[in-house]
Amino acid sequence: MGKKKRSTYIDNIDTDLAKKTYNEELNIVPQWEEIGVEDSLGRVTYYAIHARVSSPNYNAAAMDGIVVESIRTQGATESNPKILEEGEDFKYVNTGNVVEDPFDAVIMIEDVIDMGDGKIQILNAAHPWQHIRPIGEDIVATEMIVPSKHSIRPIDIGALISGGIERVQVYKKPSVGIIPTGTEIIDSLAELETGKIIDSNSRVFEALILEDGGIPKRYDTVVDDHELIKEAVLKGVRENDILIIGAGSSAGTKDYTVDVIEELGEVIVHGVAMKPGKPTILGIIEGKPVIGIPGYPVSAYIVFETFVRPLILEFIGLKEEEDSFVKATTSKKITSTLKSRELVRVNLGYVDDKLIATPLSSGAGVTMSLVKADGIAVIPQSLEGVEAGNSIDVRLLKPMDRIRDTLVSIGSHDLIMDIIGDMMNLSSGHVGSMGGILAMKRGECHIAPIHLLDMDTGEYNIPYIKRYFPGQKMAII
Amino acid sequence: MGKKKRSTYIDNIDTDLAKKTYNEELNIVPQWEEIGVEDSLGRVTYYAIHARVSSPNYNAAAMDGIVVESIRTQGATESNPKILEEGEDFKYVNTGNVVEDPFDAVIMIEDVIDMGDGKIQILNAAHPWQHIRPIGEDIVATEMIVPSKHSIRPIDIGALISGGIERVQVYKKPSVGIIPTGTEIIDSLAELETGKIIDSNSRVFEALILEDGGIPKRYDTVVDDHELIKEAVLKGVRENDILIIGAGSSAGTKDYTVDVIEELGEVIVHGVAMKPGKPTILGIIEGKPVIGIPGYPVSAYIVFETFVRPLILEFIGLKEEEDSFVKATTSKKITSTLKSRELVRVNLGYVDDKLIATPLSSGAGVTMSLVKADGIAVIPQSLEGVEAGNSIDVRLLKPMDRIRDTLVSIGSHDLIMDIIGDMMNLSSGHVGSMGGILAMKRGECHIAPIHLLDMDTGEYNIPYIKRYFPGQKMAII
Repeated sequence: MGKKKRSTYIDNIDTDLAKKTYNEELNIVPQWEEIGVEDSLGRVTYYAIHARVSSPNYNAAAMDGIVVESIRTQGATESNPKILEEGEDFKYVNTGNVVEDPFDAVIMIEDVIDMGDGKIQILNAAHPWQHIRPIGEDIVATEMIVPSKHSIRPIDIGALISGGIERVQVYKKPSVGIIPTGTEIIDSLAELETGKIIDSNSRVFEALILEDGGIPKRYDTVVDDHELIKEAVLKGVRENDILIIGAGSSAGTKDYTVDVIEELGEVIVHGVAMKPGKPTILGIIEGKPVIGIPGYPVSAYIVFETFVRPLILEFIGLKEEEDSFVKATTSKKITSTLKSRELVRVNLGYVDDKLIATPLSSGAGVTMSLVKADGIAVIPQSLEGVEAGNSIDVRLLKPMDRIRDTLVSIGSHDLIMDIIGDMMNLSSGHVGSMGGILAMKRGECHIAPIHLLDMDTGEYNIPYIKRYFPGQKMAII
Repeated sequence: MGKKKRSTYIDNIDTDLAKKTYNEELNIVPQWEEIGVEDSLGRVTYYAIHARVSSPNYNAAAMDGIVVESIRTQGATESNPKILEEGEDFKYVNTGNVVEDPFDAVIMIEDVIDMGDGKIQILNAAHPWQHIRPIGEDIVATEMIVPSKHSIRPIDIGALISGGIERVQVYKKPSVGIIPTGTEIIDSLAELETGKIIDSNSRVFEALILEDGGIPKRYDTVVDDHELIKEAVLKGVRENDILIIGAGSSAGTKDYTVDVIEELGEVIVHGVAMKPGKPTILGIIEGKPVIGIPGYPVSAYIVFETFVRPLILEFIGLKEEEDSFVKATTSKKITSTLKSRELVRVNLGYVDDKLIATPLSSGAGVTMSLVKADGIAVIPQSLEGVEAGNSIDVRLLKPMDRIRDTLVSIGSHDLIMDIIGDMMNLSSGHVGSMGGILAMKRGECHIAPIHLLDMDTGEYNIPYIKRYFPGQKMAII
C-alpha cells in the first residue's frame, strides 16, 4: 500500500447550514403521477381533491321501516291511531333504500303495528324528512375531501370512492439509488473471511427509503477503483432521482467518492460539524443530489436521517416532522468535543419520576448502540461534555409508553440481562458493580447487577449491600 | 318486498366484555414463517435472534494511519522521536483494515512524520490496542440482537446482517378475507345510479388490514341471497385466517349474515353497547373468526378498529397500543344515550391554552366526519350527554404537533373555509353565526365566520361585532 494523496476534511460546516446551502443549490421540483384510489394508501396528494358526486346520491331510508307521506300521518295519536294500507299509503323499506316521491318520511319498523292484510296502524305522526338521509348528507359534490400535501389514510380512500373519485394525482416517489463501495465489502455471509465486512448499510438504506416513501434501487458493490466508481455513479445518477454512495471506510486512500463527484459535478459540502457523521459529502451531478455517506453503521444511519430523509420528503410533498425531545438526567458522564454537535445513543427509563438516560457506546461502528437506543441525546457543539446527574435533551426513538415500562439497570454486565431484555424493555448501563451501587443510592436505577467479592469474608455481594444500604430492605436475586 | 322475519338485536353487550368473551372462545394460535432478512422490514420476530458471528470478525484499524507494535514505540517523545521503517516496524493501513500479529496499535496518519525512503518519525508512544476495533466491538457472536415480538426496523436489519443472520423467523401475516354484501352495492362509478352505493368500505378494510400487518383479500360483492352468501362465507373462511362480512345495510330483511354464521358455526356476540357500531356480529366458523360489520362507513371503521385490528395484531405477535387520550373542552353540547358508549368524532385546536373539541356530525353514514376528525371523544355509557364548555376525553387521531397548529373556526359555514382547509389544519364547527360570536366571546375560537344582516341599518356583520365586542380590536376579513 503506497502513500497516495490523502484527502483531509476541509470543512467542518454546521449541520443546519450545510442542509440549507445544499437545498438552495439543489432546488428540487417534485413531480406527480396518477394512480388508482385503491392503491393510494400512504401516498401524498398533489392537489386538493373535490368530490365529483354526492353521497348518498339519492334520498335514502336511514332506518328499516315504512315510507309514508308525512302529511297523511298527521293527527295520529295513541287514542286516535291511523290505519295505512301497503302500496297505497306506505311501502316497506330497509336502511339504504330509495325514498321516492311522494314519500317524505320513514317510520321505524318498531313503531309499526301490523294489522294483517297489508294494513298497519301508527300511533304517532311522522315529521317531514324524519329518518331519511338526504342527498349529499355524507359528501356534497364539489366539496373538498382531502387537501393537497395530505398523506392518504384508509378512511380517506373510503371518502374518495364515495365522492366518485377513481384516480388521484399524487406526488411521485423518488427513486433512490444506492451504490455500496469498498473492496472489503462483501454481499453475503458465505464470502465472510478475515478483513471482509458484510454489506449491511445499503440494506438499512433500502429499508429507510421504503419507510420514508422513496423507491430504493441497490446496485452491486463497487470495488475501490476510481474509474469503476465513476462509471457506477454516472449510471446511478441517470437512473435515479437521488443517489447515495456508501463508503467502505472514511477518509482513507481508497475513498474516491469526493473526487468522482468533483469530476462529474460539484461538491457542495465535504465535512459537517456532527459526530458521528463528519465525513459526509453533499454533491450535485446533473442537477441531482449525490450524497457520500461514511461507512460506519451509526454514521451511515445518522447521515441518512439528517441529509437524505429530508430530500425524499421534499420529493413526496411532505415536511420533516419536528423531532420530539424530552429532558432527561444522564446516569453517566458524556464527553464531547467543541468541534462538533455530538449525537449520543441513550437508553431511557423512569425511576420514580426521574427520566434517566444511560449513554450507550459512542463508537460509530457500534450498530447495537442504535438497535438498543430509546433516544439520541444531542450535545450541542458549545459543550465539552456533560457530567453524570446533569440534564440533557434527548430525541425520542420509541414511544413514551414503552419508555415508561422500561426497567432501568445500572451496574455490571450479566448474562441474565439478555434474558430480561427479551422479556421487557430494558435500559442497561454498564458502569461496573460499584457504579451500580452508587446509582442505586442516587435512586437512578431499578436494579443493579453486581459481582463484588468481599476480601475479608470471601462472600459475594452481600457484605457490600449491608455496607451501602444499612437498614434498608433490599431484594437480592 | 314482503314482511319476512326481522332480526332484532338481542344483545347490548359491553364492548370490552364482548372482546374478552370472543377472544376466549377463539383461542388464536399464531404461526411463524422464515424469510430473508432483507425483506423483514416491519415484520415481527417470533424468537429472540442471537448473533451467529462477531462484528467485526477481526481486529480492525479504527483510523487511517500505520500499525505498529506498541512495545517498539515506547520512549518516543518530542525531544526523543522514534524512527520506524515501513515493512519492518510498521505498515500503512486504512480504517477497517486487518491488524495482524504482531501489530497491536494504530497511530493516526496525522501523527506520522514522513521522512522519505519508507521511514517515518513518531513523537509519542502508542498504547497497546489504541485505535483498534477489537473483534466483536459491535456484535459478539451469541449476543441477542433483537428480542422476540419485536417489529423489525431498518437499523435492526443492519445489525442482523452484521451478526451473520440471513433468514429470520417472523410471525406469519394473517390473511383477512373481505366479503362485501348487498344488492345495492356496486363496484365502480360507471354503474352508479339512484339507489346504488359504490362499495367503499371494503377498500377501507383493505387499507386498514395492510396498515395493521395483515394480507387483505377482497372478494366480489355478493347480492342479498342467503345461499350465495353462505357459499361465499364458507369459501372465505377456508381461504383465510380471518373473515370480514361487510353488510349493505344494518338490520334489514336482507341481513343474512347472522343466520349464515349461525348455520355454519356459532354467533358469539350480536350487538354491542357502542354507538356507532351496535349491529356488530362476532362469530366463529371452523375455529376461525368471522366478523359481521355494519354497512355505515363510520360504524364499519370503528367496528374494524375495535374488533378486527386486535385479532390481526394477535396473529402477528403484537399487542394493541394503548390509545393516547387528552382532555378537551367541548365547544358544543353532545347528546348521547345511556344504552351505549358513544364515540363522537371531533376537531381539536388550541385557543390560547385551552384545547377545544368541536363535535363533527354524529351520523354513522358521514364518512367525512372521520376524514376531518382530529380525535374521537368517548362518552361513557353512564352519561346522558355533555354540555358545551364541559371536559371530555378524546382519543387522538393526529399528532399533537399538528393539533397545536390548528386554526379553530366556530360559526357559520363559508366556502372560504374549504380554501383555508387546504392551506392549514382547520377545526371548523358549524353552530351558526350567533354561535360563532358567542364562542368568540368565550375565547374558544380563533375565527368566527358570520353572515348576520342587521335589519335596522341593512348592513352585514359590523353592527353585531360592535354590539358584542364593544371597544375591542377585531380583525374583519
